[in-house]
Amino acid sequence: MIELRPIGMVHSPVKKRGQMPKEGVGALVEVFPGFADGLLQIEKRTHLWILGWIDGGERDLLQVTNHGKMEPHGVFAVRSPARPNPIGLTLVRVVAIDGRNISVAGLDFLDETPVIDIKPFMPSRDVIPDSNG
Amino acid sequence: MIELRPIGMVHSPVKKRGQMPKEGVGALVEVFPGFADGLLQIEKRTHLWILGWIDGGERDLLQVTNHGKMEPHGVFAVRSPARPNPIGLTLVRVVAIDGRNISVAGLDFLDETPVIDIKPFMPSRDVIPDSNG
Repeated sequence: MIELRPIGMVHSPVKKRGQMPKEGVGALVEVFPGFADGLLQIEKRTHLWILGWIDGGERDLLQVTNHGKMEPHGVFAVRSPARPNPIGLTLVRVVAIDGRNISVAGLDFLDETPVIDIKPFMPSRDVIPDSNG
Repeated sequence: MIELRPIGMVHSPVKKRGQMPKEGVGALVEVFPGFADGLLQIEKRTHLWILGWIDGGERDLLQVTNHGKMEPHGVFAVRSPARPNPIGLTLVRVVAIDGRNISVAGLDFLDETPVIDIKPFMPSRDVIPDSNG
């Protein structure tokens, strides 16, 4: 079994999944004091991947229909929060950094979502050269 | 504490980190039989995010220098495998799918890396409209 430690917490105005706009919202990513040293030079980055623990989905569900709105898809073929390891992945724009608090745009995690990792967006790794459409 | 279950395993010709090309290599992502139902309709997807458990880095290290080659950076400002929760994130192209085995191009995980999630690449979520450079 693999164990994770939350490194921070999301503070968002959105507290229920049904209220989250598709494009996410402005939110604060708070990094806990014990992990603050990991932020050195993060101000160089304009966009970040935020990895959150989006528990609350069903971990044993392997196929979903989006409430009957689509034909069944395996959870690995969609971005549903229902998945064996409910890790959410959201690309955000950095708006401002104040110590351990990163203000971001476009985050689709609910208020109080545990943050498990922050990674810089890197075009050399994260962009498909031949197809962005 | 958050617990993860491996859902699959990487089979790669590369067994040591120093031998991994920057752009990754062709590799096989094997999904374990208990999670195979999660692959339904994955053949619709051309590019996937593979999330791997890249343990072997130092989980208590919060700043790195890339073996002295750069000034210190916090681990959240770089893509180093040293991080509190060593989750690796790689964008790959799907080459072929054979049952539970997904042949991919561009994977930078070593042989026998546990796979913890597979997500479809979705331009609507994963592309920065104003800056890919």
